[in-house]
Amino acid sequence: MNDQLEANKRIVREWHDLAINQRKPEEAVAKYLGTYYRQHNPGAGDGPEPFIQAVKRIAQHFPDFRMESKRIIAGGDYVVLHSHLVLKPGDRGSAVVDIFRLENGKIVEHWDVVQEVPEPSANNNTMF
Amino acid sequence: MNDQLEANKRIVREWHDLAINQRKPEEAVAKYLGTYYRQHNPGAGDGPEPFIQAVKRIAQHFPDFRMESKRIIAGGDYVVLHSHLVLKPGDRGSAVVDIFRLENGKIVEHWDVVQEVPEPSANNNTMF
Repeated sequence: MNDQLEANKRIVREWHDLAINQRKPEEAVAKYLGTYYRQHNPGAGDGPEPFIQAVKRIAQHFPDFRMESKRIIAGGDYVVLHSHLVLKPGDRGSAVVDIFRLENGKIVEHWDVVQEVPEPSANNNTMF
Repeated sequence: MNDQLEANKRIVREWHDLAINQRKPEEAVAKYLGTYYRQHNPGAGDGPEPFIQAVKRIAQHFPDFRMESKRIIAGGDYVVLHSHLVLKPGDRGSAVVDIFRLENGKIVEHWDVVQEVPEPSANNNTMF
């Protein structure tokens, strides 16, 4: 059980690094996606192709965009990734939580929530 | 280990229901919060009091506001709650992910990410 959770975390870390920060969404899809990909991000349709196109579109507009993962939490079939999206260096960026559901070591479903980091804050802890 | 994860989920479910949907944040704080509460929501300071005031302020402006939890994921010291916040009945509302860190069965740290549910969506799966 814990082996599976650790394996799922590794899969999501690698998926995220390869698809987003290395800009290789096709490779990430081929390696880590299941036979289907149910998408809950309201900006993208189901399946791998809208995801690939979204990464390419963002990279075209923001060639230096980065997502730095801050914490990763695995429970049951889910892996939760809490990360900091910065489209342009120096921007405050956005806080993002991605939730992935895995089946047999493959990613098959995705939800996310995105919020711009505001300024100022009522505490000194950052959003991360 | 799994007993602890299940206990942590129960604590977060009860905290959330009591503080938010039953509008009893003081009771929730007394029962479920640790000796400190480190806050990462940029709208609130550390400690229980800003949280209590925030719930009261929202309830004053939106007496029917509800947060319906959609899934709960526990891993390590963390519990992740994915929920649908509706301030006024009939609104599309917001998707929220709350992340809690627990120590010895008490909530001691909190992060969240909030995004309004947009219309239309590129898929038929909802944000949940």
